[in-house]
Amino acid sequence: MFTIKGTIWIESKKGAFLGSGRVLLLENIKKHGSITTAAKAMKMSYRQAWELVNSMNKQSKWPLVVTASGGAGGGGTVLTKEGEKAISTFRKLQEKFHAFNEKESNKLKL
Amino acid sequence: MFTIKGTIWIESKKGAFLGSGRVLLLENIKKHGSITTAAKAMKMSYRQAWELVNSMNKQSKWPLVVTASGGAGGGGTVLTKEGEKAISTFRKLQEKFHAFNEKESNKLKL
Repeated sequence: MFTIKGTIWIESKKGAFLGSGRVLLLENIKKHGSITTAAKAMKMSYRQAWELVNSMNKQSKWPLVVTASGGAGGGGTVLTKEGEKAISTFRKLQEKFHAFNEKESNKLKL
Repeated sequence: MFTIKGTIWIESKKGAFLGSGRVLLLENIKKHGSITTAAKAMKMSYRQAWELVNSMNKQSKWPLVVTASGGAGGGGTVLTKEGEKAISTFRKLQEKFHAFNEKESNKLKL
């Protein structure tokens, strides 16, 4: 019995834009409202997390993650509408890819 | 402008069965009639090539590569019908995967 597996990511002309790790980071930033806490949750250094966020922000027309300073809540790091869209686009794409793999796995004759 | 990229492979319960590297190796064995020459063409050690062939042969019901000894031609290493099928199955799967990526890339709204 054979199964098709794979991995998928989205590139711009500047290189990797969105993949599993980057999207999980966006989801963690959304959950925790902080790059530092998101990085810790993923056992990643703050520097690495910041570089991934910076890379995504620079490749997108609008930033995916912004840090608001001040205000009644004391600021914090939030996902923009673009950031939300990046997550949902990638997760939907992954679902389609998994469906493709499952369909093709069932057709394999090896 | 964003593009979807990815990589795909076929696994059995024992692990990796067919991927880009393994299929290229099968194609080179078919072309050269020799694991040694195929390995050299891919800048791979003989040992590594042999291990990949052994891994594929052990996972398949019938071996993909066999070494015939003796005979008028002095023997040599050839692909079996199963080996040919493995190549064509994987290459067709890759084509479908590339078509999937292209179609989904055109639909991306990021």
